Amino acid sequence: MKLYIGNKNYSTWSLRAWILMKKSGISFEEVKLPLDTPQFYAALEPVTPTQKVPCLVDGEVTVWDSLAICEYINDIYLSGRAWPADKASKAKARALAAEMHSGFMALRNEMPMNIRAVRRVVLSENGQQDLQRIDQIFSQQMDEYADRGGWLFGEFSITDAMYIPVVLRLITYQMAVSDGAQKYVDHVMACDALKAWLDEGLKETEIVECDEAGEAV
Amino acid sequence: MKLYIGNKNYSTWSLRAWILMKKSGISFEEVKLPLDTPQFYAALEPVTPTQKVPCLVDGEVTVWDSLAICEYINDIYLSGRAWPADKASKAKARALAAEMHSGFMALRNEMPMNIRAVRRVVLSENGQQDLQRIDQIFSQQMDEYADRGGWLFGEFSITDAMYIPVVLRLITYQMAVSDGAQKYVDHVMACDALKAWLDEGLKETEIVECDEAGEAV
Repeated sequence: MKLYIGNKNYSTWSLRAWILMKKSGISFEEVKLPLDTPQFYAALEPVTPTQKVPCLVDGEVTVWDSLAICEYINDIYLSGRAWPADKASKAKARALAAEMHSGFMALRNEMPMNIRAVRRVVLSENGQQDLQRIDQIFSQQMDEYADRGGWLFGEFSITDAMYIPVVLRLITYQMAVSDGAQKYVDHVMACDALKAWLDEGLKETEIVECDEAGEAV
Repeated sequence: MKLYIGNKNYSTWSLRAWILMKKSGISFEEVKLPLDTPQFYAALEPVTPTQKVPCLVDGEVTVWDSLAICEYINDIYLSGRAWPADKASKAKARALAAEMHSGFMALRNEMPMNIRAVRRVVLSENGQQDLQRIDQIFSQQMDEYADRGGWLFGEFSITDAMYIPVVLRLITYQMAVSDGAQKYVDHVMACDALKAWLDEGLKETEIVECDEAGEAV
């Protein structure tokens, strides 16, 4: 099984699929390609119709898109364990994951993931609203689950995979969050699989200009 | 079970959840709210944290986001039948659905769904690329499935729910597509559940300015 990913410093969608697979103990070959280079497109052209990362190739099966990869892994390798077991929690977990997958455009544009940077940004009104919603999600889930495993629904789920890159953005841009949301930030940052990703991201030297936002601190 | 939706003329995401439920024979109460009005936000505020449509309320369970609603319905009411049965097709169907859910931004912005209009637009380069990708998806799937049920994977699936609003846009903006893709357009337009939605959309009179793109023909 091969997972094609982009630069660890920048590629949020790659991280989402990667961390679900790592946290689930699934072994796979990682193929890292430098975003936005001829090499990137040349390598992906025969593999995926969208020429985007992440892309998973599992024998005859090719899955592009982070959320589709997570659902595939959950179905085929995890017997459904990557979502909460009870019906209502699973529905909420999926709604939150989908909300991230299709939304938070202002936050995504104004606070691109950039692991090795420390920056300051002034958010637009939409960006501020996105940040408030993030704080609400994290703090509400921690009210219920901080003492029951520490992830958004206690045990690690696809919803965590979706929101972990947001935590990294909060750190890069030094955004203050509520005490409840901070519990989740701390829990995420203590994750060993994530630390391995961060270590490798910090060693990268490629610059992707469009993801270099904000003012150095 | 209540499904909150927006104007039938404009609300693509509402249509996606609605048509999956209709095509699956699931009975539900439809709550239609006029997009972008105080009434819309007042009605949704106590129901969903995102104040967006569609939103499904099924007893104690609330699911916002179209894709999450489709996955919920598939899990709880359809025993998984809303995705293709075989592993590789299901993976591809999910990848295509996710590709729509998070992408095609240029096409979505430049060709908003507007059922009762006939318009002409000049697409940006990104818009043209999106349109080419749509044509590729439709024609490739029809190569395999036109004679095996006519939907993207033969039988109706969540992937069709995701792409049906794109078909309506092709018609509003009179976009020519390849013969293969046209087979899918024709199949979609012959769907009785969709006809019922279109009939009601055509009767609506509200105007949502940001969705009124292009030049009248």
